[in-house]
Amino acid sequence: MSGAASFSRPVPLDGETASRLRTVSTATLTSQLLKRGLRRTFLAGLRPTRPDLRMVGYACTLRYVPSREDFGSHVDYDNSRDLQRIAVESVGAEDVLVIDARGQVGAASFGHIIATRIGRRGAAGLVTDGGLRDSPGFASLDLPAYYRVPHATTSSVLHHPVDLDVPIGCAEVYVAPGDIVVGDAEGVVVIPSALAAEVARDAAVQEDAEAFALERVRAGEPISDLYPLAESRRAEYEAWVRAKRPAGG
Amino acid sequence: MSGAASFSRPVPLDGETASRLRTVSTATLTSQLLKRGLRRTFLAGLRPTRPDLRMVGYACTLRYVPSREDFGSHVDYDNSRDLQRIAVESVGAEDVLVIDARGQVGAASFGHIIATRIGRRGAAGLVTDGGLRDSPGFASLDLPAYYRVPHATTSSVLHHPVDLDVPIGCAEVYVAPGDIVVGDAEGVVVIPSALAAEVARDAAVQEDAEAFALERVRAGEPISDLYPLAESRRAEYEAWVRAKRPAGG
Amino acid sequence: MSGAASFSRPVPLDGETASRLRTVSTATLTSQLLKRGLRRTFLAGLRPTRPDLRMVGYACTLRYVPSREDFGSHVDYDNSRDLQRIAVESVGAEDVLVIDARGQVGAASFGHIIATRIGRRGAAGLVTDGGLRDSPGFASLDLPAYYRVPHATTSSVLHHPVDLDVPIGCAEVYVAPGDIVVGDAEGVVVIPSALAAEVARDAAVQEDAEAFALERVRAGEPISDLYPLAESRRAEYEAWVRAKRPAGG
Amino acid sequence: MSGAASFSRPVPLDGETASRLRTVSTATLTSQLLKRGLRRTFLAGLRPTRPDLRMVGYACTLRYVPSREDFGSHVDYDNSRDLQRIAVESVGAEDVLVIDARGQVGAASFGHIIATRIGRRGAAGLVTDGGLRDSPGFASLDLPAYYRVPHATTSSVLHHPVDLDVPIGCAEVYVAPGDIVVGDAEGVVVIPSALAAEVARDAAVQEDAEAFALERVRAGEPISDLYPLAESRRAEYEAWVRAKRPAGG
Amino acid sequence: MSGAASFSRPVPLDGETASRLRTVSTATLTSQLLKRGLRRTFLAGLRPTRPDLRMVGYACTLRYVPSREDFGSHVDYDNSRDLQRIAVESVGAEDVLVIDARGQVGAASFGHIIATRIGRRGAAGLVTDGGLRDSPGFASLDLPAYYRVPHATTSSVLHHPVDLDVPIGCAEVYVAPGDIVVGDAEGVVVIPSALAAEVARDAAVQEDAEAFALERVRAGEPISDLYPLAESRRAEYEAWVRAKRPAGG
Amino acid sequence: MSGAASFSRPVPLDGETASRLRTVSTATLTSQLLKRGLRRTFLAGLRPTRPDLRMVGYACTLRYVPSREDFGSHVDYDNSRDLQRIAVESVGAEDVLVIDARGQVGAASFGHIIATRIGRRGAAGLVTDGGLRDSPGFASLDLPAYYRVPHATTSSVLHHPVDLDVPIGCAEVYVAPGDIVVGDAEGVVVIPSALAAEVARDAAVQEDAEAFALERVRAGEPISDLYPLAESRRAEYEAWVRAKRPAGG
Repeated sequence: MSGAASFSRPVPLDGETASRLRTVSTATLTSQLLKRGLRRTFLAGLRPTRPDLRMVGYACTLRYVPSREDFGSHVDYDNSRDLQRIAVESVGAEDVLVIDARGQVGAASFGHIIATRIGRRGAAGLVTDGGLRDSPGFASLDLPAYYRVPHATTSSVLHHPVDLDVPIGCAEVYVAPGDIVVGDAEGVVVIPSALAAEVARDAAVQEDAEAFALERVRAGEPISDLYPLAESRRAEYEAWVRAKRPAGG
Repeated sequence: MSGAASFSRPVPLDGETASRLRTVSTATLTSQLLKRGLRRTFLAGLRPTRPDLRMVGYACTLRYVPSREDFGSHVDYDNSRDLQRIAVESVGAEDVLVIDARGQVGAASFGHIIATRIGRRGAAGLVTDGGLRDSPGFASLDLPAYYRVPHATTSSVLHHPVDLDVPIGCAEVYVAPGDIVVGDAEGVVVIPSALAAEVARDAAVQEDAEAFALERVRAGEPISDLYPLAESRRAEYEAWVRAKRPAGG
Repeated sequence: MSGAASFSRPVPLDGETASRLRTVSTATLTSQLLKRGLRRTFLAGLRPTRPDLRMVGYACTLRYVPSREDFGSHVDYDNSRDLQRIAVESVGAEDVLVIDARGQVGAASFGHIIATRIGRRGAAGLVTDGGLRDSPGFASLDLPAYYRVPHATTSSVLHHPVDLDVPIGCAEVYVAPGDIVVGDAEGVVVIPSALAAEVARDAAVQEDAEAFALERVRAGEPISDLYPLAESRRAEYEAWVRAKRPAGG
Repeated sequence: MSGAASFSRPVPLDGETASRLRTVSTATLTSQLLKRGLRRTFLAGLRPTRPDLRMVGYACTLRYVPSREDFGSHVDYDNSRDLQRIAVESVGAEDVLVIDARGQVGAASFGHIIATRIGRRGAAGLVTDGGLRDSPGFASLDLPAYYRVPHATTSSVLHHPVDLDVPIGCAEVYVAPGDIVVGDAEGVVVIPSALAAEVARDAAVQEDAEAFALERVRAGEPISDLYPLAESRRAEYEAWVRAKRPAGG
Repeated sequence: MSGAASFSRPVPLDGETASRLRTVSTATLTSQLLKRGLRRTFLAGLRPTRPDLRMVGYACTLRYVPSREDFGSHVDYDNSRDLQRIAVESVGAEDVLVIDARGQVGAASFGHIIATRIGRRGAAGLVTDGGLRDSPGFASLDLPAYYRVPHATTSSVLHHPVDLDVPIGCAEVYVAPGDIVVGDAEGVVVIPSALAAEVARDAAVQEDAEAFALERVRAGEPISDLYPLAESRRAEYEAWVRAKRPAGG
Repeated sequence: MSGAASFSRPVPLDGETASRLRTVSTATLTSQLLKRGLRRTFLAGLRPTRPDLRMVGYACTLRYVPSREDFGSHVDYDNSRDLQRIAVESVGAEDVLVIDARGQVGAASFGHIIATRIGRRGAAGLVTDGGLRDSPGFASLDLPAYYRVPHATTSSVLHHPVDLDVPIGCAEVYVAPGDIVVGDAEGVVVIPSALAAEVARDAAVQEDAEAFALERVRAGEPISDLYPLAESRRAEYEAWVRAKRPAGG
């Protein structure tokens, strides 16, 4: 297994969708998913290493199970056989490596050198519902990562990697290979790839309406007919949208 | 229900008390409450959106219960009937909206537009023992808010608002409408309104004594007769207080 | 009991070891301890008040048990008899006061004046697996402290100090008096004093190898023969180490 | 407030529905509610005092908030003003008193004498998501009760009752006054009263189908076309139902 | 150290007190302690191995800290040096061995042979806030034990015993050597030895009043003037007490 | 996939090993595994439905991930495609179906009809680290099952089955297909199949030694040279073993 396109991507992202997903918030995206009946799409309890960066990419998944002492608690991993290491050398451009660490925080899921290599391969980000080691170094790494807590201890004391590219749970959210994963300073949302285009489009519209509402609320108006937007304000809102857009937009 | 004074305020804050509460720490206030037998007054586990701001105001309470799917998991709230929305348009100047979210962190309790409107109405702050969405936007909002964790998902998947202006629990602390709510970078303390004046006064005195102790400790003295202040040091301390105060103070 | 050297120090730190421990990360130290069979050495779940400072010192331990109401929930401590206060006036240069607060977060373990005094006595740091009060003030205190959560309430509502200089658990890690305690922005690791010199030495070597690997990974190489370092790259690595060192180094 | 019918009962139970609810399991009832879109209807984590009894009745609700020390931690309750005591003397025949104890287990919600009186008034049961005291005595009390853990300490150290007959959360399930509450050895399910008749009817049908499936499975058949029942087996199943029923049934 | 009276017993139990403590419930005892200001006296979350037995004795304490791998995770304990084993051979008649296992449930605190030996030495019981192994065998052992959960794994993987006869916390309750420990089917209560006689005496009186109340409640009376007993019913109650007692009682 | 031998069985159990595993306790087995360096082998926190039965068999694994609402929360499962149902019709004689339910207790993992069918196919048991529905019915089912809590709600609201016969975690213990799973009234232990014979053999010897120790302890001897058995008592112990065994044994 090597390089780009190693992993499942059932529905590729078109450029406009990708671009929209890079601007709308995870809050707006969960609302659009909820409108489509999906209630559990946000990976709760994770923190960003780079709240100033956005993350958009395809989920490529790595599954950890509890380690057993007869596997050894190696500090030195076998790069030719350890699935964590194979995963690292398999992620490609626009991939987000998502790790099912069973929410366990008694050790790290990965560290700084691993993440540096993943970034160098062009990946879009890293997500685990477990710990992160070398966490101070992530502030200067140009790759967004999401994790539960810092923990200095290497993953092998707690985790044994067993699968790549299978459906997993991460922070009690279903993640399938190829799902679209979006992160901002609030956290991470997972979007079924078949829904990504319409969700991104409607999210952009929703954010326009909320920008209008916010502008009016800041000016002193009540939320009553602004949030959500009442029919009676629609014409005004649409004029506002037109005025905001550049002539040829 | 509309505007200022909608909510219970059994004992109004006088100006001197309000002013003292804006300077003393929540740590000092819990000590004064403990001296009066009140042990559980600090809302543990909450984080501030604006650790640089102080919050002082009257509790106006909003109670959430678990939502049930037959109520719908609406993204679009009905502003004329949803109690969360009615609460938002009812808070007045110096109110702190305190939400009983049962400590549940699987969804938000409120978001950025709601908070902007509350601030615009003159409220003093927002407190929930649940989640907060659009959390990145709160850093630039001129209203202190306290919450447990960020969560992008709107409140309706988890919460259904049922009561305004009733006694609630928030972070396992009793909060009655009209209680005085004070927040600093450490967190939030709730003061029964009948005790606010004396607690504020004694807290200011306590902080004077601690400032004296801290100055001496920094100069190298042991805490032995400084913290707490021994009778043998009282005269010296009082001289220090007089020296520190402006002539006409 | 008074001043420096009050507490057990079975194996003193030599200068080179102390110096190395001030530069290597807690992540590297846990790996060296794991190579020696020690798996639980990192105090999980604690946060630093000063992530910009390093902490290296000898554990001097303070054990809290649950308080009982007949002891009183005093705001004013008796400095001549309260063991917390005796501990404060007993720590000496290079001591790290480590408190067993049973992981309880419903009150503080100590506060700002206590910590200021400890720092003034020359101590190297403060660690608790409980709460911390006056937490905002610690950002400007020149003493690293590690704690679980901020809590404004004084320790006596929850804790009663009963022992100094005994083995304790802190964050479910064994800590014996005189153990070497090292902290960085990630957290705190405890090193049996008899192992400190060899662990520090090997940690420094490990960090050299990781710096080499990181440089190459940043340049675009895969981790395959770099992390861990393969025999085939050893000569190159050693040349790199020699080139990096100053002539007389 | 006194005696029977004090509490809200939006939709009374007809005799056939009540009778069906006394025979079908809570497992079947949650399935029928799930078919109608209701996912959170089972009060998880509670244990029965009398697994041999069934409980069917109307929810009458009692809301606890955290107590505050200035209310006193009375052992002796004021029966004329304490809402717990007023609730006890208000429940009537077929009522199930459901207590919102915020899931807190550090004290009891009620004890044996209270429960005895509730049973003597004809109530159908008692439910709390908190503790229970005098728990050994409940084995010989002819009233089913559900609770989280035994705890010998009286409720006032932790709880203060503030409301009767309001919507509450219990074990993170929405409970409105007058909802139908059903308990068996597995636990407690809450049914919106408007759905009770149809849910009970369909649950009885479902249990017939499952009894048929179980009989066949015990005889060695695979579940393939039995659970759920395939169309191809429907005629056989219906014959089985007819054969099982008494002639005039 | 050997045999009876090894451990602290600041206030011996007189025969009448011991006898009363064997009949009153832990629920009543917590109420009497609460009347004296003691709120946290019940060891929450523990289960009895023998709910049919009563336990009354003196606390002798054993403190566990987290084990470290360099101590070894021995299956075979060194009976001459391991403090758990020394504790076992030190308990005497009427002792209750109370173990501070930090509430950790990932291993046992002790097992069946240890408990058998403790019983054979005349001890009154065993209490841990951790796990218990060989738990099925305790049903036929004539010694009451209280524990949190069954766990088959021996204590050394998690615990290292470090102290005997020191104040500890158990289930977040303060336990001093020599405190009186009482257990029934509900759980365990700890009584400061100086209070034992008066608490036992008043508990017996309280139970008389509750027996009177219960008899009347069962007969159909409201709790209003019975629980607590109103002055207006006192004469009647006292007559009932006299009638119940044997002539020479 | 159908019937016996569907699943991996790397090392078959010989008759003597199987027979020994049916008599020794899980406590003894964890000790033997610990002697071989395996510390995490006991599935903590599970309760047996049939504490009177022993369970010995081969692990066949079923992996659940969080469900997503677009899969539907079906009450009626599709037996031809749902992996839970395929698993049920695939287990064979001596299989123990072990489910990775991520420790989640907000729904069941399976129910009574499923378990009846599994038993009818000759399976040896059922284990989940999640919930169990229809739990009261399991008392009369001739198949041991282990689970965390009862929950009436069907699995689809929380779980989606995705894999059979892969390594999983269950109760934070590694379980590989074909591992030997042993259960008694205390709980469940997992034994790597390659170790089963020697572990069973040594466990039987250990239990002999403990039976000897227990007999002597009951007779009043201290544990000093009995538990563990000292060399000085070995001859006596061996005579005891010989005397206990039948002549031709």
